Amino acid sequence: METFSSKILQAAVEEFSRLPGIGKKTALRLVLHMLKQDKGSLERFSDALLHLYNNVVYCSECHNISDQPLCSICSSPRRDKSTICIVEDIRDVIAIENTGQYHGLYHVLGGIISPIDGIGPDDLTIDALEKRLKTNQDAREIILALSTTMEGDTTNFYIYKKLQPYGLKVSVIARGISVGDELEYADEITLGRSIVYRTVYETSNR
Amino acid sequence: METFSSKILQAAVEEFSRLPGIGKKTALRLVLHMLKQDKGSLERFSDALLHLYNNVVYCSECHNISDQPLCSICSSPRRDKSTICIVEDIRDVIAIENTGQYHGLYHVLGGIISPIDGIGPDDLTIDALEKRLKTNQDAREIILALSTTMEGDTTNFYIYKKLQPYGLKVSVIARGISVGDELEYADEITLGRSIVYRTVYETSNR
Repeated sequence: METFSSKILQAAVEEFSRLPGIGKKTALRLVLHMLKQDKGSLERFSDALLHLYNNVVYCSECHNISDQPLCSICSSPRRDKSTICIVEDIRDVIAIENTGQYHGLYHVLGGIISPIDGIGPDDLTIDALEKRLKTNQDAREIILALSTTMEGDTTNFYIYKKLQPYGLKVSVIARGISVGDELEYADEITLGRSIVYRTVYETSNR
Repeated sequence: METFSSKILQAAVEEFSRLPGIGKKTALRLVLHMLKQDKGSLERFSDALLHLYNNVVYCSECHNISDQPLCSICSSPRRDKSTICIVEDIRDVIAIENTGQYHGLYHVLGGIISPIDGIGPDDLTIDALEKRLKTNQDAREIILALSTTMEGDTTNFYIYKKLQPYGLKVSVIARGISVGDELEYADEITLGRSIVYRTVYETSNR
């Protein structure tokens, strides 16, 4: 994919193909699609991006993406301020919000500890979390909701150790068989964990 | 995917998810990726799009996307002006150029006749092709290089009929088994055609 009849077209295709998961062919398809739109929608697209860059801020409390200095979750009077859920990035906030099962606050780390990618604890918002816990005495429980990978476990353990002096309850989201999954296709580690950490329905008297 | 903490973020995600093949989740991933870039690269992205819209033109001869009124292929003295290859859109021009096997000119139709999508002959550049053949007497052969679908065949036949008064040689690109394909997995129609339109290696004397 090198022969472009137009340098301008080529420049636009190269910009698109820098995006993650977008190759040259897809980039060309997207650019040609945009060319077929009217000028208004192209300007709206371009404006939305610049607007995003110029006006979006990170919440001073939880580091979620926000339009105001304090995000809509942190500033809501209806959220339970005694629980803080630690997540990797804003996509996880959206995913958990969509479940409708969580009503506490969040803390967005901005990544997880991953030496292979050169990400250490200092690159994350762990210091900010500690400062937050020092100034705000409402927190009672920290829920760790990171990826169930080795990097996620490392980060969980690091944060758990860091938070020990604060005397908070620290929990980790349940790992087990996905709802709708068939047992025979589950991997051994997940299946093993789901047995060890089984949920008790009812306590019998025997 | 409805709970966004930022309206600006939501607007950008919606713009991205209007692109073909990009869903809400991918759009969010792309937007978050862009947010992590420095301002310069975001502006470059946005500029490339606006530049594209404001400065790109369609070649007055072949309707290929171009930076000049006459595209680099049509204006090249090294191209064989006696052959015009009819293609659906500019992606096909790029694909054929990349083969390095074709040295003639192109004519970009801008689509193919498809009643189901509401595209008739008048929506394509067929009139412009006729005008081109009337004013330019160099053309000797027209190669039809459209998709091998029913719509492609309909368009081929329509153009073939339209061009009959001009007394040109009209050909269609070869259809057959893809190079590297195994025969047993080829569909019957392709395999049948590849036998009927077999290529003769050597003419024997018998």
